[in-house]
Amino acid sequence: MVSEQPSAVEADPRFTRSRRAIADTLADLMERTQSCPSVSALAEAAGIHRATFYNHFDSVEEAAVYVIADDFRALHDLNIRDRRMGADPTAVAVATLNAMLDSLRQRKSLFLLASTWRSSSGLMGIGDLLLEQLHALRRDLGVDEQESGANNSVEDVYTASGVHGVFSAAVGGNTDCDPGEIAVRLYELLPQWIRQPPESSTH
Amino acid sequence: MVSEQPSAVEADPRFTRSRRAIADTLADLMERTQSCPSVSALAEAAGIHRATFYNHFDSVEEAAVYVIADDFRALHDLNIRDRRMGADPTAVAVATLNAMLDSLRQRKSLFLLASTWRSSSGLMGIGDLLLEQLHALRRDLGVDEQESGANNSVEDVYTASGVHGVFSAAVGGNTDCDPGEIAVRLYELLPQWIRQPPESSTH
Repeated sequence: MVSEQPSAVEADPRFTRSRRAIADTLADLMERTQSCPSVSALAEAAGIHRATFYNHFDSVEEAAVYVIADDFRALHDLNIRDRRMGADPTAVAVATLNAMLDSLRQRKSLFLLASTWRSSSGLMGIGDLLLEQLHALRRDLGVDEQESGANNSVEDVYTASGVHGVFSAAVGGNTDCDPGEIAVRLYELLPQWIRQPPESSTH
Repeated sequence: MVSEQPSAVEADPRFTRSRRAIADTLADLMERTQSCPSVSALAEAAGIHRATFYNHFDSVEEAAVYVIADDFRALHDLNIRDRRMGADPTAVAVATLNAMLDSLRQRKSLFLLASTWRSSSGLMGIGDLLLEQLHALRRDLGVDEQESGANNSVEDVYTASGVHGVFSAAVGGNTDCDPGEIAVRLYELLPQWIRQPPESSTH
């Protein structure tokens, strides 16, 4: 589970530093070599002990998901900031989806590596991460669970997995769709509560 | 690609027989051992040469997808037959989704194995298979691509991936949802063209 809530251990600056080192080193190695390093090679390049790696992640695949989670969290924060500053919600949402797609295209081999990770929720790759992003969006837009469905409901899993599939086809395979159109068409498929959140969302 | 259209080679009865033997043997082995056999062990148990295996599949994972594809095709045919006999389309669709879920639950370790396969379209596991099922549904219900979106469109990839994710969470992980309700709630999320196909569908 790539959690957003830091525990006491995770708030320790050394913990944060070694996690950061693993993530940055993995992103860098994958960009340069396009192939998955062993845990030993990754730990050595990051300047940490192999055992330290396992304090953070169970596998290199899980670390790859973490790198993408970091990118997506930054994009989520920009999304919320722009919405609160009064930008057009549709334009912001489409721009966010495009930025997510761009970041995955730039990290293609890392994204393919992350796709083989199975989380405890049973989803593969970044499915769980997208589920967490939905929860963060619901919270930050002030959307009631009664209206939008509870966390981890069938509705949320469907949405997160649908977005994940479109990202996978767009980055690692093919769709019959103009790449520039993907975000717009994906946005149209999202549930109503994302496309028209209540007024309170712009507080 | 687990194709539905047999080529000239695939129509050869020996080809069909060895493919059948691989699929049945894999299903049987996974049920008994809950672990993935090597290609050599699978070929030996199926009574074929190792090289013959590779005439059919690139990997054991791909063969696992084929086993599930076979189950799903039979369910699709029942679905279409029941619709044509005038059964209530909603009841038929929910029953089909429940039957798909049941067959995956019964083949859980095979399904988890299949989940790690990546197709050429960039989707993992049975994502591609569900995409083919959507195409077959569109064809057999006589739905116009103009209304429903073209094959492999963003819309189809989203739907297939959404269904895949819900199946994965329901079988291999968790949702916050009563298992008996999953098919009903999943059905509600499907695109309009599946839920209300044109009248011509019951010809």
